Amino acid sequence: MIRILGLDPGLAETGYGVIEIRDGACRHVVHGAVSTSPSISTGERLEKIQREILDVIRAFKPTQAGIESLYFAKNITSAIPVAQARGVLLLTLSQEGIASCEFSPPEIKLAITGTGRASKHQVQELVRILIGLPEAPRPDHAADALAAAICCYHHRFAEVRLARGIDV
Amino acid sequence: MIRILGLDPGLAETGYGVIEIRDGACRHVVHGAVSTSPSISTGERLEKIQREILDVIRAFKPTQAGIESLYFAKNITSAIPVAQARGVLLLTLSQEGIASCEFSPPEIKLAITGTGRASKHQVQELVRILIGLPEAPRPDHAADALAAAICCYHHRFAEVRLARGIDV
Repeated sequence: MIRILGLDPGLAETGYGVIEIRDGACRHVVHGAVSTSPSISTGERLEKIQREILDVIRAFKPTQAGIESLYFAKNITSAIPVAQARGVLLLTLSQEGIASCEFSPPEIKLAITGTGRASKHQVQELVRILIGLPEAPRPDHAADALAAAICCYHHRFAEVRLARGIDV
Repeated sequence: MIRILGLDPGLAETGYGVIEIRDGACRHVVHGAVSTSPSISTGERLEKIQREILDVIRAFKPTQAGIESLYFAKNITSAIPVAQARGVLLLTLSQEGIASCEFSPPEIKLAITGTGRASKHQVQELVRILIGLPEAPRPDHAADALAAAICCYHHRFAEVRLARGIDV
């Protein structure tokens, strides 16, 4: 059994999700989001993100992580706070000895739905089905984090799955 | 006596510098840079930056910090690694209880030289004179970090200096 953490970084909201791989099947473990208020300093917001993601890591003990990479065609102003949160998350994963892989939003969409053209709703519905959730995960950042975790599973274990003839 | 840490964030090279304020005079304490290799993962590079800046903080005990803010008009690709390193530095300053202020490169140039038009060389030469160094600080990122520390001093203690009639 292995557990994979997915992360969708953001300063205002960082989504997280943990999935479990057992006997070639992918199951939901937990998901949620860390929210921070602009009324505190950027340093304090980053501290809160690190503290709460460390709580998730210590409670659910993932050994691998998938993290969304930055993919902003135009808006550098919104990219900077996301990149700052992402730096703190990459630091934390490295300090905890968790191997991480990075995926762009189109790579994640393709891995989940088999097409780069799927809507956000379709991606969330497939995430729900793939990991056996009764309802689509909320908030959106947590759904994106679970999608990144599933993408990491596809990426890291594709060869194992092909050898076993298991098609997720 | 107070000590101010200046930081110029970067993934490949983060500059640092510490100055000391004693009897209204500004003196050089230490400067340098943390370099990281692209042959290791981003997480490991961020770990090295945090570890070495923590060594500087623990050795020289600054209570204030000035940090360069991001100021990229066009290049988002180069802004992302800088912002990731900057996130780790803001986290570290907050965790260590160091009050930080952020300055854009033009604000720093103006604070050091009195004009936004000064060349990089002129800024470095004024930094050297202001803090009593025999030679211009090297590398460039360390000189920029010292300039951010001086800018923080001007910003935080302007009122005290004006009240005392001290002109730095």
